[in-house]
Amino acid sequence: MSTQLPQREELIGALAWKMRRLSGETVLFHQAIADRLAINATDLKCLDLAAGPEPVTAGRLAEVSGLTSGAITGVINRLEKAGLVRRERDPGDRRKVIIVPSPEVPDRVTALFGSMTDAMLELCSRYEDHELALVLDFISRAAKTTHEQAAKLQQTGDSAVVGA
Amino acid sequence: MSTQLPQREELIGALAWKMRRLSGETVLFHQAIADRLAINATDLKCLDLAAGPEPVTAGRLAEVSGLTSGAITGVINRLEKAGLVRRERDPGDRRKVIIVPSPEVPDRVTALFGSMTDAMLELCSRYEDHELALVLDFISRAAKTTHEQAAKLQQTGDSAVVGA
Repeated sequence: MSTQLPQREELIGALAWKMRRLSGETVLFHQAIADRLAINATDLKCLDLAAGPEPVTAGRLAEVSGLTSGAITGVINRLEKAGLVRRERDPGDRRKVIIVPSPEVPDRVTALFGSMTDAMLELCSRYEDHELALVLDFISRAAKTTHEQAAKLQQTGDSAVVGA
Repeated sequence: MSTQLPQREELIGALAWKMRRLSGETVLFHQAIADRLAINATDLKCLDLAAGPEPVTAGRLAEVSGLTSGAITGVINRLEKAGLVRRERDPGDRRKVIIVPSPEVPDRVTALFGSMTDAMLELCSRYEDHELALVLDFISRAAKTTHEQAAKLQQTGDSAVVGA
């Protein structure tokens, strides 16, 4: 732990501001990707979850995304209409319906993220291993914190009244 | 610049994954904030832009967000309906209409972001000044890169056909 200096406060202020800027830019980047796929940003997030190694049900998507099951139905309808997923019976349990990404999804999404991947590799090339390890540690903790804070907002949102 | 080691490749892979995870969590966090304000994530981003030091016009919002002027009209309508902004004549130029956040916006938004701010301060307390400076440098460059990549997608989106 460090001594508290005005310099440190400035540093934390600048970091908070830049993280907020990165958040904003990330939202707009995801929006741009979603626009290119003719879906919205939430649909894109759910497509990303559905494209993972395990097959997912609508219920699991609702659980992971924090959306209501009604909202998830809308998401899956839009993804289906855009040709990005299909609803299929789970071969392991015919009572369950799973959301399966279309075979061309990896290529379409990789093509859209390709230029970003190259730019981020170029950015990493400017740093030493131990520097990247430190950034990785900070970003891992920041991701965990953001997850916890979103969950907290969603929970309090069920009971609290919005307003000043 | 560093030597290329398998360890370095793993580090960059892990960093890319965690940054993607932070992006995803950030999108969901913004979605949770937007839900609490009864608007969508894009509306929230535009509210953030409108709450800056300079008064903004609808045209300026379109320019900065990369949305069409039609989409911006929808955003402003929703923000107005949620009681978060008003359309007003610019006192400096009566021909211009500016988007003015409601007086209670700073308090409402600060209240929603408050717990996140505290959690991020706690996270920063784990690092030395020089470590925070390095993270700040990386995140600043990552934000700039993300901005450039979103702009690139928006530009190519106007002429390119989506698909594999």
